[in-house]
Amino acid sequence: MTIARGTPGFSGADLANLVNDAALKASRVGANAVGMDHLEYAKDSERKSVVMSDRSRKMTAYHEGGHALVAILTDGANPVHKATIVPRGNALGMVTQFPGEDGGLEQSRKPMLAALDVLMGGRVAEELMFGEAGVTTGPSSDLSQATQLATDMVTKYGMSKRVGLVSYDDGGRAAAMSGSMAALVDEEVKALLDKAYSNARTILTAHSRELHALANALLKHETLSGDQIKKIVSAGRWF
Amino acid sequence: MTIARGTPGFSGADLANLVNDAALKASRVGANAVGMDHLEYAKDSERKSVVMSDRSRKMTAYHEGGHALVAILTDGANPVHKATIVPRGNALGMVTQFPGEDGGLEQSRKPMLAALDVLMGGRVAEELMFGEAGVTTGPSSDLSQATQLATDMVTKYGMSKRVGLVSYDDGGRAAAMSGSMAALVDEEVKALLDKAYSNARTILTAHSRELHALANALLKHETLSGDQIKKIVSAGRWF
Amino acid sequence: MTIARGTPGFSGADLANLVNDAALKASRVGANAVGMDHLEYAKDSERKSVVMSDRSRKMTAYHEGGHALVAILTDGANPVHKATIVPRGNALGMVTQFPGEDGGLEQSRKPMLAALDVLMGGRVAEELMFGEAGVTTGPSSDLSQATQLATDMVTKYGMSKRVGLVSYDDGGRAAAMSGSMAALVDEEVKALLDKAYSNARTILTAHSRELHALANALLKHETLSGDQIKKIVSAGRWF
Amino acid sequence: MTIARGTPGFSGADLANLVNDAALKASRVGANAVGMDHLEYAKDSERKSVVMSDRSRKMTAYHEGGHALVAILTDGANPVHKATIVPRGNALGMVTQFPGEDGGLEQSRKPMLAALDVLMGGRVAEELMFGEAGVTTGPSSDLSQATQLATDMVTKYGMSKRVGLVSYDDGGRAAAMSGSMAALVDEEVKALLDKAYSNARTILTAHSRELHALANALLKHETLSGDQIKKIVSAGRWF
Amino acid sequence: MTIARGTPGFSGADLANLVNDAALKASRVGANAVGMDHLEYAKDSERKSVVMSDRSRKMTAYHEGGHALVAILTDGANPVHKATIVPRGNALGMVTQFPGEDGGLEQSRKPMLAALDVLMGGRVAEELMFGEAGVTTGPSSDLSQATQLATDMVTKYGMSKRVGLVSYDDGGRAAAMSGSMAALVDEEVKALLDKAYSNARTILTAHSRELHALANALLKHETLSGDQIKKIVSAGRWF
Amino acid sequence: MTIARGTPGFSGADLANLVNDAALKASRVGANAVGMDHLEYAKDSERKSVVMSDRSRKMTAYHEGGHALVAILTDGANPVHKATIVPRGNALGMVTQFPGEDGGLEQSRKPMLAALDVLMGGRVAEELMFGEAGVTTGPSSDLSQATQLATDMVTKYGMSKRVGLVSYDDGGRAAAMSGSMAALVDEEVKALLDKAYSNARTILTAHSRELHALANALLKHETLSGDQIKKIVSAGRWF
Repeated sequence: MTIARGTPGFSGADLANLVNDAALKASRVGANAVGMDHLEYAKDSERKSVVMSDRSRKMTAYHEGGHALVAILTDGANPVHKATIVPRGNALGMVTQFPGEDGGLEQSRKPMLAALDVLMGGRVAEELMFGEAGVTTGPSSDLSQATQLATDMVTKYGMSKRVGLVSYDDGGRAAAMSGSMAALVDEEVKALLDKAYSNARTILTAHSRELHALANALLKHETLSGDQIKKIVSAGRWF
Repeated sequence: MTIARGTPGFSGADLANLVNDAALKASRVGANAVGMDHLEYAKDSERKSVVMSDRSRKMTAYHEGGHALVAILTDGANPVHKATIVPRGNALGMVTQFPGEDGGLEQSRKPMLAALDVLMGGRVAEELMFGEAGVTTGPSSDLSQATQLATDMVTKYGMSKRVGLVSYDDGGRAAAMSGSMAALVDEEVKALLDKAYSNARTILTAHSRELHALANALLKHETLSGDQIKKIVSAGRWF
Repeated sequence: MTIARGTPGFSGADLANLVNDAALKASRVGANAVGMDHLEYAKDSERKSVVMSDRSRKMTAYHEGGHALVAILTDGANPVHKATIVPRGNALGMVTQFPGEDGGLEQSRKPMLAALDVLMGGRVAEELMFGEAGVTTGPSSDLSQATQLATDMVTKYGMSKRVGLVSYDDGGRAAAMSGSMAALVDEEVKALLDKAYSNARTILTAHSRELHALANALLKHETLSGDQIKKIVSAGRWF
Repeated sequence: MTIARGTPGFSGADLANLVNDAALKASRVGANAVGMDHLEYAKDSERKSVVMSDRSRKMTAYHEGGHALVAILTDGANPVHKATIVPRGNALGMVTQFPGEDGGLEQSRKPMLAALDVLMGGRVAEELMFGEAGVTTGPSSDLSQATQLATDMVTKYGMSKRVGLVSYDDGGRAAAMSGSMAALVDEEVKALLDKAYSNARTILTAHSRELHALANALLKHETLSGDQIKKIVSAGRWF
Repeated sequence: MTIARGTPGFSGADLANLVNDAALKASRVGANAVGMDHLEYAKDSERKSVVMSDRSRKMTAYHEGGHALVAILTDGANPVHKATIVPRGNALGMVTQFPGEDGGLEQSRKPMLAALDVLMGGRVAEELMFGEAGVTTGPSSDLSQATQLATDMVTKYGMSKRVGLVSYDDGGRAAAMSGSMAALVDEEVKALLDKAYSNARTILTAHSRELHALANALLKHETLSGDQIKKIVSAGRWF
Repeated sequence: MTIARGTPGFSGADLANLVNDAALKASRVGANAVGMDHLEYAKDSERKSVVMSDRSRKMTAYHEGGHALVAILTDGANPVHKATIVPRGNALGMVTQFPGEDGGLEQSRKPMLAALDVLMGGRVAEELMFGEAGVTTGPSSDLSQATQLATDMVTKYGMSKRVGLVSYDDGGRAAAMSGSMAALVDEEVKALLDKAYSNARTILTAHSRELHALANALLKHETLSGDQIKKIVSAGRWF
């Protein structure tokens, strides 16, 4: 395989990327050095990447749109600051919200429940758009945050009636609890997450028009401010 | 965004605070440097902070008032030394009590049970004022202390009939106990906390007039001595 | 607050103590330096201490009297050497016994069961005197020792029929046992402690006159030798 | 035993190999030095090796053919890049696939389920060819990868209804879960693997003609590109 | 308290011992220095020691006699080499046996079961002599050894039908077994120990005459060789 | 005790051995130095050793004969290379087999099951010869290897239907599995071992004539090659 420098459509940066991809491939298969087959592989993969990422952008737009829409329509949720589908680090997109009152030093039950709903918004949007088969792993950090928050609500802040007011604020959950208590905690955490999921689903199903509008706007403009988002949502709702 | 030094309403200290908030935001989102978007975010957040903290002050006043009132009205509780809603470190407010007789070297069952009731006083006050949804995470260190105390009562001081006189004073609870014993301990600890909650609720519901009086006095004066608190409570009770 | 040196009733030593108490208070609330409020707090606390400790002395006298009396009246218990209510280190009082035959290299079941009864004597005496609410945490090291001894009887010395002759003398209990065995061990240990408690209660209830005599003598003389204790107990019993 | 250098059929390399095998044998039996019996053993073993590896090559050809065929015939599976039965490191053969869209940064449920099917393809092919008794340990790293992927689907990505949306993305599965939850997770993981196995079996049973064609081609050419594989599969299917 | 050097009955060695005992006492109660009360305590204790150890010698004689007698009368037990009641290190007495055939490299089930019986012999002898209350902690290392041997029989050597042939020879029992298996192992180990106890009891009850003879001979001569023991046992049996 | 150098029957080597045995004895009983009693003990033990090891040699001959015979008569078992009863290191004897095809890089179910049968062969032979009471601890490393292999079959290679295709190839079994799964694994492992035991028993019972022939040949010649073993087995079978 020869790729001459300066080949139209193949810049020095592209060459560097190609070599990098080949190196990644080589290491993934446990080889000690980059071989011709790795370079060929990298070249073949390259063409697919360009075409496919439209699907990924679309998925991200609905994902972030889902977060933003649930945030706007849930009483007690923190206001939306900005939404974007420009990738940063590992994230394909992001919605940022203002912290709660008093900069996060104090949170109460209502905004916490709302935060759970918002976190579920991404995944629900993906499911509504692409069905269950389409659900990406993007939501995993959302699910992870939601699990942590729900767990804190149950084990630190005494917000579950069944578990009660016991607080394991001192870290080391498993060590402190009996197996019976741990099973109860798992049930309560699951219940919180299921409820949040259900809330998000209710909202996004009832406001699918706004979700489409928001997603399309993100695909077009890539980044929207909180005000722009609010305008789009209101507009979507006039029908 | 430009903020000129000397802008009316925006002092050098404000500027420093703004830059600090932006830096916090930048680090929270994992960025390596503070960017324009972080500064904008900080500026937007600033306005909200000022307005909202009234709600937080009010919540704190009732929270601390709840502690103090339960302390005063519970036989066996340690006398109240002072109550304040001036933040210190992580705490939004504080009620200090005199230690028990003999400077804390020795505690008996009665003051311990009373201490549990007092610890619950903060959360119960919040619930009475703002409903369950309003319960803050402020009580989490109260819950954590209460859990620790109740656990000691059950596992160190042999104060639970069902668990009996076995004492795991040597630390390392989970290692010493069978799963059955651990489950029993969890039930007994929960029972102590539920009872304390119930006691605090009874007291604060019956003395809501005094609670209001106390909270309002704290909002006005920020700090009250034990004697002042007693006067207010008596006054509240004359009706 | 001013405390002039040489103030009647307030010596240099008192001043040093006051500053010390204030420093303790400051550190307890997480402050970096001792402030005026800490000093005021210390001064206020000081007056309470003097008055209250009579109650603590009385509790200690009954506690130690309980140990001594059970020791004297239980067949197989080690003879009493001395009883005192002079605090030493963390302990508010102490009863010392002669070791068993052969200096403790060898113990048999009977003296072990008697030792359990003696360990329970302190707590039972407190309960008889001050009711359940009055039970102090003083007994926690007694309970801790009793738990350890009972556990050894069951898991090292094969003294429980239900657990049998299996011996975990090699340390690391939890690692060696199945959950079922651990639960059984917990039951057997609890049974030994409950029985010891019951024995102590029987003895002290039947000999409450001697208990009072002993406690009062300790309050008066602070320290009593084994012989003096025996005399008092016999005298108490002549009625 | 004498093996003269230059003995026909026994080269210097063969000698080196023989000594190496003898050393392996010696170490396997815990001896400190290579003895005559080890050398004899090595010499006797040598003859068997040459003859038998045909069976191993055949097994590998079906194993890799199984992977490739399931990949081609499963909707959502990543396209096949290459298949080979040339050993590399510990692997006796390999099938490489192109990563999913967007280079693997994002995966959704459908390609994950397909990946499970593909992973099972190797083992199913072996079973169809050689019966259950013939199943090699070659699939163990396939099973291991499949287990990890299925576990992630259940515990990280919330893709199991019964387990729900709880996500243990923070590592340390066993520590976070109660025993009840862990048992449920095990059931769900097993269900995913059983289903994948069943899918692979359905495909390979229905397309055994293509499997044979592919395996034979691999035995003949050792390495096949994705295009060649597709041709063979289509050809197999025309009948 | 004065003890003049040269006081009749109180030699320099006695003085040294007294000071040593006082030091032991001081350290046991957590004091930093040896005080007058510690010396008095030591002097008072001294008198008791001399008288009591007769009981301990008697207990030891029966304990060791029990071991030796069961060894002689159990088919498969290792022959007795020597029995002594001279204390050595922590042990108050000892019975030594010849190792099994081939110096201990290989043991079979029969001698293992016999070894369990022999280990129980000490405790059973104590119980027959002094009742359950008299059982000393001397047997704890016997019980510990018996437990280890029984555990090995069950978990290493596959000698339990219910547990089967599974072998955890690689150490780390708890980590390898499920809770169900661990519970089963505990039951089987207990069964082996109970059976051994029962065997020893049967033997010593039936041969109490010989036990007395042996114990008395030990009390008289302190150490007996294997041959002397056999003579005594035969003599005891002639009735 | 005097042993003069040059005493007939007692060579310098014997003297060295005697001193060594005495040292072993001394260390075993926790003494700091070798005493006269240790030397006497060693001298007395010496005579027993010589006589008894015939029994051990016989046991070893049947043990190794059992392994070899099952290997030869089990389809799928690796061919036998050599059998010996000459002790090496900790082992009293050994049977070596050729590795499977391809030098052990790949194993399939059939040879694994056969390997389990072969491993059980030693123990079964001992039981047939000497009854259950005679079973030695020699088989413990056989049992240990068998347990490890069976565990791998169940937890790594997916060879149990009940456990399924889940693979814990990544080490750390207990951490990954729920208690329910662990219990299931234990059952499946036990089933494999019981089946292997049963197979070995069937073979050796049906071919006891060959077993005797093989054992006697080993007693006579100490080491037999694979060919010699096959001859003896065929000869035994001609009847």
